[in-house]
Amino acid sequence: MKANSSLASAVDGERFWADIEAQSQIGALSPRGLRRLALDDQDNRARLWLMDQGKALGCSAHYDAMGNVFLRREGQDPSLAPLLIGSHLDSQPSGGAYDGTLGVVAGLAVLRALAKQQIAHERPIEVVSWTNEEGARFAPGASGSSWFAGRRDAETILAARDDDGVTFQEALADCLGLLEAQGAQFRDTPVIPHAFLELHIEQGPVLENQGAPVCVVTGIQGVNWYEVEVNGQANHAGTTPEASRRDAFMGALALVGALKEAVAAKGDQVRFTIGKFTLSPSSVNTIPQQARFTIDLRHPDPAVLDALDAAFRRLAEQEWSGCTAQLEATSRVAPVAFDDHLVAILDASVKAFFPQAPRLVSGAFHDAIHLAHLCPTAMLFTPCRAGISHHPDEHIERDDAEVAVRALAHAVEKLLTTRNDSHDPDH
Amino acid sequence: MKANSSLASAVDGERFWADIEAQSQIGALSPRGLRRLALDDQDNRARLWLMDQGKALGCSAHYDAMGNVFLRREGQDPSLAPLLIGSHLDSQPSGGAYDGTLGVVAGLAVLRALAKQQIAHERPIEVVSWTNEEGARFAPGASGSSWFAGRRDAETILAARDDDGVTFQEALADCLGLLEAQGAQFRDTPVIPHAFLELHIEQGPVLENQGAPVCVVTGIQGVNWYEVEVNGQANHAGTTPEASRRDAFMGALALVGALKEAVAAKGDQVRFTIGKFTLSPSSVNTIPQQARFTIDLRHPDPAVLDALDAAFRRLAEQEWSGCTAQLEATSRVAPVAFDDHLVAILDASVKAFFPQAPRLVSGAFHDAIHLAHLCPTAMLFTPCRAGISHHPDEHIERDDAEVAVRALAHAVEKLLTTRNDSHDPDH
Repeated sequence: MKANSSLASAVDGERFWADIEAQSQIGALSPRGLRRLALDDQDNRARLWLMDQGKALGCSAHYDAMGNVFLRREGQDPSLAPLLIGSHLDSQPSGGAYDGTLGVVAGLAVLRALAKQQIAHERPIEVVSWTNEEGARFAPGASGSSWFAGRRDAETILAARDDDGVTFQEALADCLGLLEAQGAQFRDTPVIPHAFLELHIEQGPVLENQGAPVCVVTGIQGVNWYEVEVNGQANHAGTTPEASRRDAFMGALALVGALKEAVAAKGDQVRFTIGKFTLSPSSVNTIPQQARFTIDLRHPDPAVLDALDAAFRRLAEQEWSGCTAQLEATSRVAPVAFDDHLVAILDASVKAFFPQAPRLVSGAFHDAIHLAHLCPTAMLFTPCRAGISHHPDEHIERDDAEVAVRALAHAVEKLLTTRNDSHDPDH
Repeated sequence: MKANSSLASAVDGERFWADIEAQSQIGALSPRGLRRLALDDQDNRARLWLMDQGKALGCSAHYDAMGNVFLRREGQDPSLAPLLIGSHLDSQPSGGAYDGTLGVVAGLAVLRALAKQQIAHERPIEVVSWTNEEGARFAPGASGSSWFAGRRDAETILAARDDDGVTFQEALADCLGLLEAQGAQFRDTPVIPHAFLELHIEQGPVLENQGAPVCVVTGIQGVNWYEVEVNGQANHAGTTPEASRRDAFMGALALVGALKEAVAAKGDQVRFTIGKFTLSPSSVNTIPQQARFTIDLRHPDPAVLDALDAAFRRLAEQEWSGCTAQLEATSRVAPVAFDDHLVAILDASVKAFFPQAPRLVSGAFHDAIHLAHLCPTAMLFTPCRAGISHHPDEHIERDDAEVAVRALAHAVEKLLTTRNDSHDPDH
């Protein structure tokens, strides 16, 4: 055992970036960006690529009932709980090449460094790619990680439908078939990890503004998702006087105005987004019968989220321009604070490379929010240009990303080579 | 020649209603209503049904380059310009069974009455079904009638695409093939009609409130259609602070608010409808990059439409919540006043059945608005329940509709049997 070897310096920066570029070709948009909707052909190809890379390194490839993929590098004591690192490979409909992918490819870079350095470790290490983190095709997101952590039941996840009416279960069946055909081993019973680490792009402007290539993340703000329906009466656009209209679009407009006011009253920390909005019957010259829209609501303080939840429900009970409304909460994920001990280890690894690194609370939702309920969990962030993500223009600097991967490797080495860690759930 | 016979009394009410019910089966929605989008399979079936009925009555069936279908009952002098009556068979996506269909089936009822009564007439009569009046699949609407009247060129009409990217030209090719296969004769050069009459449901509440089964229509208000695009910046819903957002949905919301104010300033005669509204990329947790919506704007006074057009263009030049906007006028149809002489004839026919009948200006757009530029044109309205149309609940009373058809037949008899009419364009 080479206790003083540095796994961080064994990371091959060239190879890491080549892996990033290889992944960015799968589902590539022109001139840049990705479209890899959960469980679509491109998302499945990304999984198979990962499996092939892992197998070439001598890792075993596993998958579970949600299509989560694991590359396992065995430890000297296979009975120990594995250290788990990773993120997700699916993207937004017009997404960037780094959101999620960076964390999976960084895990692969750590496996490559371990294979090269031949550091002895008793504890196994696994790199994971979680299924459907984005929730863009099947809402809500983080299907794979929430199921793995026992936070959502399979039945609900499998019943979700995409906009074409395809169920998650149908799409998943194709994926699982491909994984089996490529020789991955099915894992029936969940493994409780020793700890989970996730490197991700910040998706906000703070690190770039501070010139920090990496930082530790101490927690994640809470996220509530809603679906709202406003029901009016379809009628002819030319003949129906203003006074006798029950226009679902105008009703939705009035309701959204009131929701915005409720949000504004809670200060500028609230994130309130209407990302989907549709009308039916959707005809130029017919007054809309129904408007449907989604709400994505976030705040670090559960009390603020609860107060807004109550305000939204009260508003939905009122009449808006003669229309009725219905509001349904489709997902609620409470804010999470990461494990103090793990945060300290990651912070130390980060500061070995950039002593002035800040500590951040994540504004975005990540698979780690669910894993934190299963095992000690923490995250690293690396900056992305102008805070832009969920967009083809998402961009990271290779130098920053390399530092972040080395900081991750630094922490991995610490966690793999330290025995009798007080946070080991199997002790 | 039985000059004193009454074509009106020869109308077979039972058969007329059976025809209405037969048509309402083609593209029927459950439990009621129609979906017959222009040039789709159901719309084509409706055309073929009409052709078959006409041929069984000894009429010749014709079609033109836009898929307009004509049933011709020859006159003793085939060189005279035909009297044209009819409407359209296409529907809204979730439309009613009478909007358009009534006018075509009423024309068929008149042909049946002429065949039964054997009234001699020198002038030919034709019943027409115009292609794509609704504009629900291919915008703008009234494709067939506007082309026929020389108001729009074929090239522009043929290039229109539906939401699936299918062009009007592609859909039309299938339709024309079916018509040819069923033995309809292609008519290369347009025929200028002696006059055009259209019976239609009112699509407003006036006739029902007055208890009138039918009335003459003296003109149609003008219609402007617009497509508006609001462009912002897609970004992550969780991490992007309010201050740095350029949310296309919020931009559209602000712009629509300003458009509504401009409309309200012009009084309650303006009809302003946003019937289509979409966001992209359309993901719950992505700030919208782009909002697109349509505007349907109507008023009887061209000066008011021009003033609002200018106001809309000025508003679209401004920035809305950090987003830019673009407004494109996709269709402009000026208000029209129908032919005085023809209005007088129809009004006399109406009053033979219901002396207190009002005269109305149409709030809805009809094929007649284009025909009025080609030949003397006027319309009849019959009530529909609660003014509801463009909706499966659209409903007419059989008794009212029968009176309206008899009033139409009354006017047809007058027009067919009067020679040297000063409005005959071929005199």
